[in-house]
Amino acid sequence: MSSAYEARLSCRQNRLTSTAGIAEGYIQANLLVLPARYAADFHDLCRRNPVACPLLGTTATTGDPHSIQPKGCIGSDFDIRTDFPKYRVYSRGKYRETCVDLLEKWTSGHVGFLIGCSFSFEDALTAAGLQPRHQRTKSVVAMYRSNIPLMPAGIFVDARCIVSMRPYRPEHIERVREVTRPYHSTHGEPVAWGWEGAKRIGITDIDRPDFGDPQEFLEGEVPVFWACGVTPQMAVESAGDQIDGLVFAHEPGHMLVTDWTADDLLRLRSRNL
Amino acid sequence: MSSAYEARLSCRQNRLTSTAGIAEGYIQANLLVLPARYAADFHDLCRRNPVACPLLGTTATTGDPHSIQPKGCIGSDFDIRTDFPKYRVYSRGKYRETCVDLLEKWTSGHVGFLIGCSFSFEDALTAAGLQPRHQRTKSVVAMYRSNIPLMPAGIFVDARCIVSMRPYRPEHIERVREVTRPYHSTHGEPVAWGWEGAKRIGITDIDRPDFGDPQEFLEGEVPVFWACGVTPQMAVESAGDQIDGLVFAHEPGHMLVTDWTADDLLRLRSRNL
Repeated sequence: MSSAYEARLSCRQNRLTSTAGIAEGYIQANLLVLPARYAADFHDLCRRNPVACPLLGTTATTGDPHSIQPKGCIGSDFDIRTDFPKYRVYSRGKYRETCVDLLEKWTSGHVGFLIGCSFSFEDALTAAGLQPRHQRTKSVVAMYRSNIPLMPAGIFVDARCIVSMRPYRPEHIERVREVTRPYHSTHGEPVAWGWEGAKRIGITDIDRPDFGDPQEFLEGEVPVFWACGVTPQMAVESAGDQIDGLVFAHEPGHMLVTDWTADDLLRLRSRNL
Repeated sequence: MSSAYEARLSCRQNRLTSTAGIAEGYIQANLLVLPARYAADFHDLCRRNPVACPLLGTTATTGDPHSIQPKGCIGSDFDIRTDFPKYRVYSRGKYRETCVDLLEKWTSGHVGFLIGCSFSFEDALTAAGLQPRHQRTKSVVAMYRSNIPLMPAGIFVDARCIVSMRPYRPEHIERVREVTRPYHSTHGEPVAWGWEGAKRIGITDIDRPDFGDPQEFLEGEVPVFWACGVTPQMAVESAGDQIDGLVFAHEPGHMLVTDWTADDLLRLRSRNL
């Protein structure tokens, strides 16, 4: 049994409380599940904003929780309703509750989307001697609401890009950009950097992230920002009560362990699903 | 001989001075040609910004002007150096001259990119009874520099989205969005609309476009903005003297007539090249 499959079984049986650091080398994915009538709009949102919303796969058939396209991502034994350790439930754009499975809530009218997650490029940074600060300090990466608009798609018209931030020295930024650039399916290279860059994307107080923990800056370090996988959930919130029916997402830090490796992902690049 | 091939031959022989309205039903494409060492960065720029820079094809082999991938776009008799009626030449990010072919200037180190153009969705608007104003008044569509940032890619770090504008009545906007939405390879649905939308993307004086002609507004009409194919040229300008060697683009209004029809394009969606 692969360590990825083993991890999914543990998540399914709720024996794992977080997927951080497990099944090393395998890609983890974020989740968004919507009623089918909004699926085309959300699909367009991903296609038009591949840096903020990199699409890894979708459930092949409306209402079927057992398959994801493209194949190869997930083995034959798969259930999108149980294989994430924790789920968030939204109603009319508002967060309602967190639960450990969707068995009662999933309907024949739901469609699921798997979205790339930055864990994979963080491994690449660490391998290049550029380990992200929050990994060393065992904190949660700092995330901010930026002013970078998403290209509108259907009911998703007012969303903005959420960004994650990692501090680096200015002389390392070009290398940091190079290392993360190939990871098209997991946000790729940074969207802004430096104190001027922070101001340009509307971030004025670096010590007060909107999500996650403030990060320590060592002497001379500047912020480097990447698009962040929380963006799709914020897009759902911005669509608000235009969405009739329940929407589900993963609980941050509680992702799906896929059968893809980082190398598969480099070959995959940004998919056109 | 198809009307598309006939049109390309006319352009090659410089018997056509503009491609507006010719070979009806066939998609026209914008051009950007760069030295190979910047091709990966430009390719990434397109991949990360598919709304502003929708990629239709690239020259398959560096320095080969006779083929475009994916195949099917252009027949066997093709030369990217001659088959556009007019070309713009850039050096170190600055426009230098316009010429009718690239036979002398093209080198074995050049790579070409074909980029979607809004002509195709304009036909769809007209078919839906929503003909763009500039077509009725025989003027050039109004274009503006917006504040919408492009996601950075390699040497292209400070580019912003150029937008084209067509006036519509507010009650027609949802229909206008629906009609243009499927055209992923040619900018798709609008990026902003209404007077508030104009302000949000940094456009304060609608009567003073940065390119093209000011458009007449009838009683009650508001502006509707789409991403515009001039964006890649502006990205080259913003990269400035980081680009060593000549860059070529089509002269606005002087595009390549491809063998693709609008229907092919709908099947094509946004390509992952």
